[in-house]
Amino acid sequence: MIVAAACGLLSAPANASSSQGAAPAEEKSGAWSILADLTTEIGPRPAGSPREAAAREWAVARLKALGFANVAIEPFTVRGYVRGTDKARLTAPYDQPLAVTALGYSGTTSDAGITADVVYFTSLAALEAAPAGSLVGKIAFIDHAMKPNQDGSGYGPYGQARRIGPATASRKGAIGAVIRSIGTDNHRNPHTGGTNFPAGVKPIPAGAVSNPDADLIARVAASGKAMRINLVLTGHTQEAMPSGNVIGDLPGRDPALPPILLACHLDSWDLGTGAIDDASGCAIITAAALKAQGDGKALRTIRVLWAGSEEIGAFGGDAYAAKHGTEPHALAMESDFGADRVWNVKLKLAEANKVLGERIVAALAPMGIVLNRGAPDGGADVEPIIEKQKLAVIDLTQDGTHYFDLHHTPDDTLSAVDPAMLQQNVDAWTAVLKVIANEAGVIAGQ
Amino acid sequence: MIVAAACGLLSAPANASSSQGAAPAEEKSGAWSILADLTTEIGPRPAGSPREAAAREWAVARLKALGFANVAIEPFTVRGYVRGTDKARLTAPYDQPLAVTALGYSGTTSDAGITADVVYFTSLAALEAAPAGSLVGKIAFIDHAMKPNQDGSGYGPYGQARRIGPATASRKGAIGAVIRSIGTDNHRNPHTGGTNFPAGVKPIPAGAVSNPDADLIARVAASGKAMRINLVLTGHTQEAMPSGNVIGDLPGRDPALPPILLACHLDSWDLGTGAIDDASGCAIITAAALKAQGDGKALRTIRVLWAGSEEIGAFGGDAYAAKHGTEPHALAMESDFGADRVWNVKLKLAEANKVLGERIVAALAPMGIVLNRGAPDGGADVEPIIEKQKLAVIDLTQDGTHYFDLHHTPDDTLSAVDPAMLQQNVDAWTAVLKVIANEAGVIAGQ
Repeated sequence: MIVAAACGLLSAPANASSSQGAAPAEEKSGAWSILADLTTEIGPRPAGSPREAAAREWAVARLKALGFANVAIEPFTVRGYVRGTDKARLTAPYDQPLAVTALGYSGTTSDAGITADVVYFTSLAALEAAPAGSLVGKIAFIDHAMKPNQDGSGYGPYGQARRIGPATASRKGAIGAVIRSIGTDNHRNPHTGGTNFPAGVKPIPAGAVSNPDADLIARVAASGKAMRINLVLTGHTQEAMPSGNVIGDLPGRDPALPPILLACHLDSWDLGTGAIDDASGCAIITAAALKAQGDGKALRTIRVLWAGSEEIGAFGGDAYAAKHGTEPHALAMESDFGADRVWNVKLKLAEANKVLGERIVAALAPMGIVLNRGAPDGGADVEPIIEKQKLAVIDLTQDGTHYFDLHHTPDDTLSAVDPAMLQQNVDAWTAVLKVIANEAGVIAGQ
Repeated sequence: MIVAAACGLLSAPANASSSQGAAPAEEKSGAWSILADLTTEIGPRPAGSPREAAAREWAVARLKALGFANVAIEPFTVRGYVRGTDKARLTAPYDQPLAVTALGYSGTTSDAGITADVVYFTSLAALEAAPAGSLVGKIAFIDHAMKPNQDGSGYGPYGQARRIGPATASRKGAIGAVIRSIGTDNHRNPHTGGTNFPAGVKPIPAGAVSNPDADLIARVAASGKAMRINLVLTGHTQEAMPSGNVIGDLPGRDPALPPILLACHLDSWDLGTGAIDDASGCAIITAAALKAQGDGKALRTIRVLWAGSEEIGAFGGDAYAAKHGTEPHALAMESDFGADRVWNVKLKLAEANKVLGERIVAALAPMGIVLNRGAPDGGADVEPIIEKQKLAVIDLTQDGTHYFDLHHTPDDTLSAVDPAMLQQNVDAWTAVLKVIANEAGVIAGQ
């Protein structure tokens, strides 16, 4: 069959007329517009990279265009990871290419890589139980059984295979480590993320294979046949890379009142365009801050913090607390768990703010968002300032059932975001901000 | 949090005891076992490649082990495609990596690739409407709007963008063609597949980008900004590559009766392990042929044809018809549409076989499989023999809703197959075979 000639049009040739394709000013303030433009115009923006720097410039221009005041880049440097070529292959007992990604701070191989016998572990705990010296000259493979949870609670325990697994293998003599991706999808897209080699532990090449590739390895392991893997991870750790935070304020009617701090992070892993991690967070907090202004200013200043270099160690949060730790803040919030719907709210408010808390819960109830009596954690980019100042905190908890399908993968792009869910986030944040940014009384965490 | 030490065990070290991990003989006849072993032990097996040759040897060993007679490789040569390095990058107006795959028979670029302005077309029809000479020096991008259908009916019309789009672009002067993947998923895994450059049309580099990457290109096109793409596709077309079919018979009690021919294809695209396309087909027909024997032989011989080089032009089907076109056959069937459930049956039977048809429909009814009065097509690997001999044909139509999420992508692995659905296929095929392989009367297509 041939497509009917009438159903397609020659459109948008490269020399088409519109020079900018710019959205009207009011459209630029919407979360979808911020998210789409950042992921389309900048794309991947790994910590410390030139693309993260380009993203900071982009952020400054956008925040100024949206009417934010005191827009500034606050630079710092980080120890980063520069990706090279990532390849892996099962070479015995069968020859199969493996979809792999280096983990941040992985050791470096030559272009030919390392080839070694594989020791398969069902879990990090199994690796930890292996005798000292038992992995000399081997590649450790670390499996796990992470499954999707609405609150993402599997990431803490299972993520340890990525965070400390390679160092654990190195301590036992391994020359390389490969893990099952810390993810809940079933696609040939491996999940990257940072690993850590503490001082005194030799960094070894460390990668993650996709879940289907890990399934293959687990099948071969179950057969009892000896496995060998060739692992090529040519990237390297680099000191003193330039990074930075971007901040901007919507000044309140009463500049004497401590501001509300809203955070996200601007950096992303490099495999996707960082749409759900965390351009969507920046889009949500910024669109909500603007929307909460309504026709005039809110009582309190609302500050947005688009943090740098969160992914490789939450450097931006530390830098913010170091620079602004002596300035008063009223309350902190962060959006960094994707773009799915907000389904509950957690509050850390002083007893004196009980009524304020009730007003927040009441503002969210019409949206189907309920109180979760657990403790909010704020998020990596505000945790240092929260700790330092014992701030009040509100978490608008997102549905994370599908978050770890996409997290740190090539699939983290705008195409994975549902505009209606993104807007639901903005609406929830706006509802909360309208209460807290107009609260005249003291807001305190304890 | 740390994983509890008790929940993991050190298992299956590389030097573990079991030397083969072999399944008991009876297990090896199951569809899951055939599918798992072929995809695990051989993996990708592109037409004409050494891996396809390894798969033929594997198939011969397996079919013999399962008790098939007359097991043979029937060699032929094909014009194939040898993949090289596939890379693409949007270089203007923004810098973004693109997830790309070369199409089979693509033209070849240098390692540096080609970089050119992009002309965006919403569809193949739009490209066809472009004036002669209008694409000189350009890369044509061909978009489309394929959506999932249970019967896969979008593949015919939308797939034309892949099959003839690059040649159409070449005729108008384009130096390269990039298409939106012919697929219905939303992952950063491009869909490969063959394209065609007829005699007299200059082959140009031709690739497919993943749907999210195509979304990005469509967004930029909508903005009106000029786009440039760098396209690196270093693979090449190669003449006279060795391929072949594998056949095997389960001899019937009456060797004089024409056999039932069951087909699948053994080759696969190289990005995945060809689990749903088409190792599952080989697993289904083979397991069902064995199961239909029951405790003794069926009346008629059942022949399985594991065809070679289907993906790049259905060469195996032509070779089979050329070699066996003068031998009698009773009826042909093929399984080549994944591993999801059979939901209807199509029959092409002579009027004299009306009661036989009713018995087939009755055998399937308890499984929820209904008669579809449309015409069966058999499949690419049996179509030539069907045409030549005007054979009776039965299609057991599978649910293809998700087939084009996986088709020709890295995601086509065992992990994408549901064992229960695979077994449902075997059960449906067995039910049909028990009727037709024990039919003593003439079976005819017209």
